Amino acid sequence: MMPVQSSASRPFSPDNLQNSSELTLNGSIYKIRDMGSFAFIILRTARYLVQCVFDPQKCDADLNTLVENSSIKVSGSIVLDKRAENGFELHLNYITVLSSPYAQMPISINKKGLNISLETNLENRPYILRNHKQRAVFKLQEGIVSGFRNYMLANGFTEIHSPKIVESGAEGGANIFKLDYFGEKAYLAQSPQFYKQTMVGVFDRVFEIAPVYRAEKHNTSRHLNEYIGLDFEMAYIDDMYDVMAMETGMLRAVMEELKANYSQELKLLNVDLPEIDFIPALTFMEAKGILKESGRKIKNYYDFEPDEELAVSEFIKKEYNSEFVFITHFPSSKRPFYAMDDKVDPDYALSFDLFFRGLEVTTGGQRVHDYTEQVQKMTDKGLDPAEFESYLMIHKYGMPPHGGLGIGLERLLMRLLNQQNVREASLFPRDLSRLSP
Amino acid sequence: MMPVQSSASRPFSPDNLQNSSELTLNGSIYKIRDMGSFAFIILRTARYLVQCVFDPQKCDADLNTLVENSSIKVSGSIVLDKRAENGFELHLNYITVLSSPYAQMPISINKKGLNISLETNLENRPYILRNHKQRAVFKLQEGIVSGFRNYMLANGFTEIHSPKIVESGAEGGANIFKLDYFGEKAYLAQSPQFYKQTMVGVFDRVFEIAPVYRAEKHNTSRHLNEYIGLDFEMAYIDDMYDVMAMETGMLRAVMEELKANYSQELKLLNVDLPEIDFIPALTFMEAKGILKESGRKIKNYYDFEPDEELAVSEFIKKEYNSEFVFITHFPSSKRPFYAMDDKVDPDYALSFDLFFRGLEVTTGGQRVHDYTEQVQKMTDKGLDPAEFESYLMIHKYGMPPHGGLGIGLERLLMRLLNQQNVREASLFPRDLSRLSP
Repeated sequence: MMPVQSSASRPFSPDNLQNSSELTLNGSIYKIRDMGSFAFIILRTARYLVQCVFDPQKCDADLNTLVENSSIKVSGSIVLDKRAENGFELHLNYITVLSSPYAQMPISINKKGLNISLETNLENRPYILRNHKQRAVFKLQEGIVSGFRNYMLANGFTEIHSPKIVESGAEGGANIFKLDYFGEKAYLAQSPQFYKQTMVGVFDRVFEIAPVYRAEKHNTSRHLNEYIGLDFEMAYIDDMYDVMAMETGMLRAVMEELKANYSQELKLLNVDLPEIDFIPALTFMEAKGILKESGRKIKNYYDFEPDEELAVSEFIKKEYNSEFVFITHFPSSKRPFYAMDDKVDPDYALSFDLFFRGLEVTTGGQRVHDYTEQVQKMTDKGLDPAEFESYLMIHKYGMPPHGGLGIGLERLLMRLLNQQNVREASLFPRDLSRLSP
Repeated sequence: MMPVQSSASRPFSPDNLQNSSELTLNGSIYKIRDMGSFAFIILRTARYLVQCVFDPQKCDADLNTLVENSSIKVSGSIVLDKRAENGFELHLNYITVLSSPYAQMPISINKKGLNISLETNLENRPYILRNHKQRAVFKLQEGIVSGFRNYMLANGFTEIHSPKIVESGAEGGANIFKLDYFGEKAYLAQSPQFYKQTMVGVFDRVFEIAPVYRAEKHNTSRHLNEYIGLDFEMAYIDDMYDVMAMETGMLRAVMEELKANYSQELKLLNVDLPEIDFIPALTFMEAKGILKESGRKIKNYYDFEPDEELAVSEFIKKEYNSEFVFITHFPSSKRPFYAMDDKVDPDYALSFDLFFRGLEVTTGGQRVHDYTEQVQKMTDKGLDPAEFESYLMIHKYGMPPHGGLGIGLERLLMRLLNQQNVREASLFPRDLSRLSP
């Protein structure tokens, strides 16, 4: 019987240096630069690269026993040096090797630029992610999620966890994964739509951060088959503009979070954060009109082509200096059955997308809350209300006016970093041909 | 083109009353008590029940037009009253009906005790959750998650999101859901084990809050087929006691979070929070010895039976006044291939469980970090290392000593509330026969 005591120390941060002159660090040897009479050892710690100076006169260790990617524990003296990355060098006194690699990496990760194809990167992801720029992408992903969540919590939203194994798809269509559930047919959730609406009836405002599954059969640079959805849903709205305003405030908070707590990754990846003052909104038909005026041939009056999203974004950037634009009032026929139609012109839904730097990153809108209206809309769309009995309970027994949205985390991150392919913004992407790592 | 402005107000909280004398609120009519010359209207807001007083002399509305479960907007004067739940009553001046139910609920949710079976509860979950005690369970669930996450972030852990569609199971065994992935065989992740170890090689300390899938074919009060895993993994540990100490600190932080920010739900559900001073630890064999000494017949020397978990917990409660107990050094043959064996006695693994009030809520331990050792252990267990090539990359190219654990969120919540069935701690539980709602 023994009480449990910890000897593990918190990961290194330069903010914690204070006035100490000695420092003990854990880390992986990122690079050794042998300068003849001494050597630089770059130590990769949880978040920082730390430049250590190894002088055989002062440190009781044999340089020849040290290899890249060994995990070591070091102690030394802090020597302030403004040229060094964290404002100091560590002059080593002790080195303990904790673990050594079995082999050296086929692809060196300590180069400034990796210079490998996306295919090679993804095949070797388990160690490629150890590159300091590769991993910085996912610290920023953490920052976006933190900014989103903190804003939601501060605005009275309750965090929920809804099941991903479901009886039926919420978004319709064929792009849904099927599953054998103890002999029954089941699916992987295409969105938490039914559940977040249900929980709006319980908590008024809810949000969820969870995986979303789309069995899209096309291989593009902007689709993933499993991604993280940032979803929220809110009651007591006057109209969909309340939802759009909430998203605007949230995005502003996300950028502030990144600026405040992720400055080192922003600098490392040379990220140009968007300024969000206000986000302009165009109706679907206004946007199509602008495209037409600019001399484009409009083929599709139900949705946007990728190059149209880009052109609308560029127009808005030039005219309003905004990197975001809302598109509202999409054609009702292309929006899901839970979207509320515009009473003024029911051919259009009170539904919107958000484009960021030419890419759709959000779909949202006001939802139907009235039972009779929802049953009618299902029937109009050729759906059988009897199949949605438990979902319709919420309308039947009273729902407040409400709306919400879903954001694709990886798409938001991808545009923030101006990446070419959404797979770069996912730790272990799932696509048509990729199930591993 | 219009700038987006929001008129939506934050949900009511009694903390924000300050010195105002007037208040406007949104909510659902929870209960109407007609007293003859006046009426009480209990308004269900996002988190609080607010007692409103309707006097036809002072309020321009017809009581007969109001029904339970209508969504309304009200304005009135605050009249302080220490007997009222939030310290005040709202004397109404205006009522606007925003939305009305189509039908009244088959089961009234505004009773003190619901008095329905679990089966009926789960069938009608979409509106039963609107009961103020039912929903309080999930505010506390939010609190546990917040406490966990904040503690992790404060201790230098990075939040990650790993895929749930995977090529192979991490935990072995037959309890895994199969999936058709564009013609390939795929699975739903039994744990984020491989990915969190991989990410320890990247960020030293990581955590994840995400669904976990177990195709358990037995119907018990403690198993769910989809649950939320609170997982963490940390590098540069001396031994598994560092992991156990991290969990102890985290659990203490969770209880503090609940005490600080969820006192109203704790009171409503009469929750007795455990005091966590230190958590005693017994080895597996010590625990079996205690059971034997107490006169029990030990049938299973590889794991614990549910009644044994309870008996060990009761012993520890009596002897050490702790509601938690760690059990360490489980038989190696029953622990997964990634668990590190005790060098002193390799029949036992450096692996532990945590029991809380008689129920296992955590499994964790130190992991193998050496490549040769991991390959050997796989081979000894009859596994083919070639099938784990991308996982083994992390060992091959260098891993620090590390360990971690997984916690079942619903089990932790279930024991905290002394619920009889883990389904009560899940919003929309998935079990052998339940795919909906």
